Amino acid sequence: MVVRIRKRNFFNLLIALLFLSATSAQESTDYIWYDLAKVYKYGKVSQNTQNPFQRFPDTMQKAVRPEVWSLSLNPAGVTIKFKTQADQIIIKYKVKGKLAFPHMPATGVSGIDLYLKNKMDKWQWVKGTYHFSDTISYNYQLDNSSGKLKEFMLYLPLYATVEGMQIGVSQSNGINIQKSEGSLPMIIYGTSITQGACASRPGNAWTNKLGRKTGIPILNFGFSGNGWLEPEILEYLVQQQARAYILDCLANFDRPSLGPDEAYKRLIYSVAKIRAIHPNTPIIFTDHAGYGDADIYSPRKHAVDRLNKANHKAYELLLAKGDQNLYLLTQQQIGLQSRDFVDGLHPTDGGMEKYAAAYFNLVSEIFNK
Amino acid sequence: MVVRIRKRNFFNLLIALLFLSATSAQESTDYIWYDLAKVYKYGKVSQNTQNPFQRFPDTMQKAVRPEVWSLSLNPAGVTIKFKTQADQIIIKYKVKGKLAFPHMPATGVSGIDLYLKNKMDKWQWVKGTYHFSDTISYNYQLDNSSGKLKEFMLYLPLYATVEGMQIGVSQSNGINIQKSEGSLPMIIYGTSITQGACASRPGNAWTNKLGRKTGIPILNFGFSGNGWLEPEILEYLVQQQARAYILDCLANFDRPSLGPDEAYKRLIYSVAKIRAIHPNTPIIFTDHAGYGDADIYSPRKHAVDRLNKANHKAYELLLAKGDQNLYLLTQQQIGLQSRDFVDGLHPTDGGMEKYAAAYFNLVSEIFNK
Repeated sequence: MVVRIRKRNFFNLLIALLFLSATSAQESTDYIWYDLAKVYKYGKVSQNTQNPFQRFPDTMQKAVRPEVWSLSLNPAGVTIKFKTQADQIIIKYKVKGKLAFPHMPATGVSGIDLYLKNKMDKWQWVKGTYHFSDTISYNYQLDNSSGKLKEFMLYLPLYATVEGMQIGVSQSNGINIQKSEGSLPMIIYGTSITQGACASRPGNAWTNKLGRKTGIPILNFGFSGNGWLEPEILEYLVQQQARAYILDCLANFDRPSLGPDEAYKRLIYSVAKIRAIHPNTPIIFTDHAGYGDADIYSPRKHAVDRLNKANHKAYELLLAKGDQNLYLLTQQQIGLQSRDFVDGLHPTDGGMEKYAAAYFNLVSEIFNK
Repeated sequence: MVVRIRKRNFFNLLIALLFLSATSAQESTDYIWYDLAKVYKYGKVSQNTQNPFQRFPDTMQKAVRPEVWSLSLNPAGVTIKFKTQADQIIIKYKVKGKLAFPHMPATGVSGIDLYLKNKMDKWQWVKGTYHFSDTISYNYQLDNSSGKLKEFMLYLPLYATVEGMQIGVSQSNGINIQKSEGSLPMIIYGTSITQGACASRPGNAWTNKLGRKTGIPILNFGFSGNGWLEPEILEYLVQQQARAYILDCLANFDRPSLGPDEAYKRLIYSVAKIRAIHPNTPIIFTDHAGYGDADIYSPRKHAVDRLNKANHKAYELLLAKGDQNLYLLTQQQIGLQSRDFVDGLHPTDGGMEKYAAAYFNLVSEIFNK
């Protein structure tokens, strides 16, 4: 599927001028520009949505709380795959929302990330030079004198709502947008950590790492501060076919209005909802991975312990009742230490790697049984 | 040494008000404020400098290029140690320069980091809540109902010039600033990676990790983009007594004006300078740790290979000439993979951990011989 657009409007001209200096190595390259709004996107179920990059279908706007809806507009885990022979790729886009957070850089919050399928069939990170302002732009210089057709995967921003994105490749080459229904995804319902905080770039979010490690598509339903195991979201999630459901919401239950008892109840409820439609699909209960200062500030250690106790209790009850496809990812298995946190709540890239490795070990076990 | 200041000026009042909401848990705590400008600082040689937080003595301003001088004002690796019984600590300060970079969050660029010596005599990270604006503030809530005197270490910002810093502790307690000449430091002359890019917070910079892992003081002479093995800087460094010299500048030699031949020459020169005064002090030559996209963009792989070849050649020549105290930290030992980079040049926190571990292994070998 090729969507070719030759708009010669002022916006494009501006961007082209902006990149003239960045691309001075190859004299005045002409680019063909493609609008990425309408192309096929991985990591989202419904392709036709008001904002083409949002995670939920439009119908969910009325179903969920405004906070959840707003976060669902951030395309965490949404990717575009394409093939091109070009050795120069430019991507430019606009976002709504903050470019960066105090504890998470712009490259993570509103940045994108490009990977290339290498000769070993592995996704290999591609360096881009970037510019953040009203329009964000990334410029990728590739080593492709042979002019071979290569496959790329582009991760969209973790924490910013995208409002228009275009990709430009050198005049002599085009791009082919990839579309494959592929295998069943893993559906992950979670918190800010699932959404990607505080990865330094989208490719380093644990969910995206897990997708690359396993080759299994991921649907990211992480909602910063709002992963509350809510009926309306479960209702939607169970309508999808999945290879596994991951419930990784516990970090958002450490608040007076929720807490361990509510976590316990909602976990039981969530499994009932899933099992009504998917009697045998693996479900993973993930522990709260802890806080970076739990060793020296006991209230936080106790809060985590209580939540994880509730998690284990729900898990054991359901096992005792005969569920054969329930799994637990423990705090110990994730194994975060204080150095693995940015702010005591959110993992660093090092912490993200630990998360991804722990999940990879567990899902490998599950799927290889 | 206690410096107690009871200024009731408008600035303090403003900050106190700012924190009223953050500290609402303990009703209207009164704070004693201490000016951190004049207190003893670790990680710098000269205590009496125009900017109390800068790394170089004032005399270096005339000796070095303006770029180096400007970067030396960023207090990377500068720390303050103190003891207190307080369970509430507030630090507020102003900085000159950017609060954040696109690829490095504010918590890393202009943020601070607090550690506490735990019962096992290890430095344990302390979570703070922070606020970044014209005045930056961090608020630490501790678990200290026993009122025990505890020892803290405060890391200053990696990439921002500090202009005034105050610490406040609850009225009933004071703080004791620590000062100990301690053992000889390791002197590190390096690049942006040595200065701390792109750690998400100062404590996660590899130099600071190495300091905690070894218990050996560190003098950080990392100058972003400007670690060029220059005579005037070596002249200063060799005036200091050191337990080891680390020359980790190669990443800054990948530019037309420098390059592998110049790296080779300057490494030989650097060792001659050091050996003239310190005939037996261990010197470490560190390889360029590579680029995140070297596997797919060969010019960057070749640039690194050529620089590291020059590094090894200089090392081997000096070994052959009989130097008994020269060591090499190789790219392979550092072992960064593409996931360990934010932007292809600068390590993530995961990459910083690998750097620190590689150095720790090497210096442990050296010092345990």
